[in-house]
Amino acid sequence: MMKKLIKGATILTMTSNEPFVGDILIDGDLISDIQTVITTEVDEVIFAEGKAALPGLINAHQHTPMSLLRGFSDDLKLMDWLNKKMLPAEARMTPEDIYWGAKLAMAEMIKSGTTAFADMYIHMNEIAAAIEEVGMRASLTRGLVFLENDGGRRMSEALDLIHRWSGKAEGLITTMIGPHSPYTVPPQPFTEIIALAEQENIAIHTHLAETKEEVSKIREKYNQTPTEYLYHLGMFEKAHVLLAHSVHVNRRDIGYLKGMRGGVSHNPVSNLKLGCGIAPIMEMIEQGITVGIGTDGAGSAATLDMFAEIRAATWLQKLDYGDPTKLPAFDVLRMATVGSAQLLNIGHEVGTLEIGKKADMILIDLRKPHLQPIHNIHSLLAYCANGSDVDTTIVNGKVLMKDRQLLTIDEDELFKQVTIRSKRIVDGI
Amino acid sequence: MMKKLIKGATILTMTSNEPFVGDILIDGDLISDIQTVITTEVDEVIFAEGKAALPGLINAHQHTPMSLLRGFSDDLKLMDWLNKKMLPAEARMTPEDIYWGAKLAMAEMIKSGTTAFADMYIHMNEIAAAIEEVGMRASLTRGLVFLENDGGRRMSEALDLIHRWSGKAEGLITTMIGPHSPYTVPPQPFTEIIALAEQENIAIHTHLAETKEEVSKIREKYNQTPTEYLYHLGMFEKAHVLLAHSVHVNRRDIGYLKGMRGGVSHNPVSNLKLGCGIAPIMEMIEQGITVGIGTDGAGSAATLDMFAEIRAATWLQKLDYGDPTKLPAFDVLRMATVGSAQLLNIGHEVGTLEIGKKADMILIDLRKPHLQPIHNIHSLLAYCANGSDVDTTIVNGKVLMKDRQLLTIDEDELFKQVTIRSKRIVDGI
Repeated sequence: MMKKLIKGATILTMTSNEPFVGDILIDGDLISDIQTVITTEVDEVIFAEGKAALPGLINAHQHTPMSLLRGFSDDLKLMDWLNKKMLPAEARMTPEDIYWGAKLAMAEMIKSGTTAFADMYIHMNEIAAAIEEVGMRASLTRGLVFLENDGGRRMSEALDLIHRWSGKAEGLITTMIGPHSPYTVPPQPFTEIIALAEQENIAIHTHLAETKEEVSKIREKYNQTPTEYLYHLGMFEKAHVLLAHSVHVNRRDIGYLKGMRGGVSHNPVSNLKLGCGIAPIMEMIEQGITVGIGTDGAGSAATLDMFAEIRAATWLQKLDYGDPTKLPAFDVLRMATVGSAQLLNIGHEVGTLEIGKKADMILIDLRKPHLQPIHNIHSLLAYCANGSDVDTTIVNGKVLMKDRQLLTIDEDELFKQVTIRSKRIVDGI
Repeated sequence: MMKKLIKGATILTMTSNEPFVGDILIDGDLISDIQTVITTEVDEVIFAEGKAALPGLINAHQHTPMSLLRGFSDDLKLMDWLNKKMLPAEARMTPEDIYWGAKLAMAEMIKSGTTAFADMYIHMNEIAAAIEEVGMRASLTRGLVFLENDGGRRMSEALDLIHRWSGKAEGLITTMIGPHSPYTVPPQPFTEIIALAEQENIAIHTHLAETKEEVSKIREKYNQTPTEYLYHLGMFEKAHVLLAHSVHVNRRDIGYLKGMRGGVSHNPVSNLKLGCGIAPIMEMIEQGITVGIGTDGAGSAATLDMFAEIRAATWLQKLDYGDPTKLPAFDVLRMATVGSAQLLNIGHEVGTLEIGKKADMILIDLRKPHLQPIHNIHSLLAYCANGSDVDTTIVNGKVLMKDRQLLTIDEDELFKQVTIRSKRIVDGI
């Protein structure tokens, strides 16, 4: 097994909020030691003086191929954005486009310090193949919409993904089942999916209460809030659930989520940019609900930079409460690492820097004017850093980026492919 | 005069929202030509294929030396932040500390694409000297607080700054007079300052209605809103005024601002981070009031990255109205360039790329995963770019950063100085 030593980093384990200068020993895919000074023979030394080492950020909700549509339809009404732009463009995407779109998203994620992500899309085989090549960690879900007559076909694709890819790519790939949302999956198929999830111990990834319109729609149809709809289907009791958004949940809804396995992916930038609102995540946290952070697809959020989400998450709580003490730096950084890891059901493997955990970590170069002087590193990372400050990204013990150079993706070829493909996809739309 | 040619950039003039690929000729400190292809003999060619050229961003409200306190007191109640941390730390700053703090702020601004800024602080001679050395454009103001007995001394410093530095540093430095705010300047000195500003044609830089508490305080004292207080002193009629914040202004207040020379510096990140609220800038714009963008000091906002402010500005309007069409990409980019330039009273010189204007501009490298593919450049710049994507910064025809290397600041020496000084300043606080 290859041994790597990270030397002289300022280490933020995310288990305690006391950073310290020290070394991290990586043995194969695992963190095998963390100490002030480690002296042992290794294959590679990564010098990290003046750099912060922290667990890789984990993006808890994503639609990777939508990176091809970044900036294509900003500043539009939600329904225009969806119906006039996103859906027609997505209908034109070939499996190969999806492969390249996922790769573009991964290039951006690795370059901004994300090591793992939860993805819900179509043509998941292509995405899984891209992941295997690139070496990121991911939880994959085939999105299931039952508004048309081909729900059955989609369902078989969802199961095929689960059987074919779970635990593959050296264990980097896990899977979930993905009923899209309360407003796109009627009670019968939803009940069947939940039963299957319970029987086969499959986690569920779904959207919940992203917009006010969704709440009105579900209330009209079922005389329930979207959260009540899922609760009464038994979802929170029967499966580990990853809920994306959960912006429009009231106090009673939060009560229904209490005790759930899994938790909520807060996607503040997408919620802001689409004018959806502020998710009441402090109230969720107070009820013991795990909150992680995601970006949503680049078609809405624009970037996949988790540092932008971290900042937006804490800003929104401070704004909502009129109180700058809400969601302080360390807590929001934990949401993007420990919290997201729990949502992806991989909290036992990643999310902190601890001996025995998988070696997923990033180094951030602090020798930049906007990261000096160093009074409080957690503050600098939560409020000042952006993705471009990450200089090294390691997943499963393998270096995917060093000195900002991607080692498993050919950027020139990537840009060539996405330029041609994205132009074709949106042509005339 | 030195001639420079920027070759093959995607040019965003900010006068129209149609980007085009072309060349920009710089002759001395001026833009002397902009065309699809310029062929002429020059001293230096800057190749800019795959890069966007736009006017330098203008930070309309700043307290540069507070960069030394970045991250020192986050996540605290506003009054704890101010009284327990900021004021004791600021009291310990020597003139030399202020020189280095201003330089740190300028290093960050140049590296994130800002070419001009409005600064209000103390020991302005040191800041002016740093600016002259570094070569940025700035509007300087000595902050005037009249709560103690030494207002007179401060006033003489304010006038000294104006007489000594206006038009200096090759015209890069302009000045304003700076009564701090409605709650720190009583009516009599405020009236005298406004009279002086009118007589001597000096612009005014002040804070307005940053917090709800300020509104309560002024209402209790004068039975007026802070805006009414300034209006009834005749401020908006008698001088060009740069108003920072203006978060808590009601519809009637906005009516009082209508027709003002100058306008409002919107500082969304600081307002978010301190939990102050959302400034009603769409309503101001509808009333024809100029709105620019600023960061406020790094002690509150944490960074001076104008791209973060641009994004936050449009997000907050979309959130406030529940409408993603509010404040679209081109409009918010114009606020950070054209708008801020008007606030600094230098709109005739900078803020757009036009023949005859001063050569203040930046180049942004678009060959990054988070800036690809290119469907809409304005969208990419407003929603995806961050300061680290700027690779060239030019002020007054002089290149201050090339390939991310600062040419007028020694970064190593800077970091050494700010580390030692900032530790001393906060020690034991």
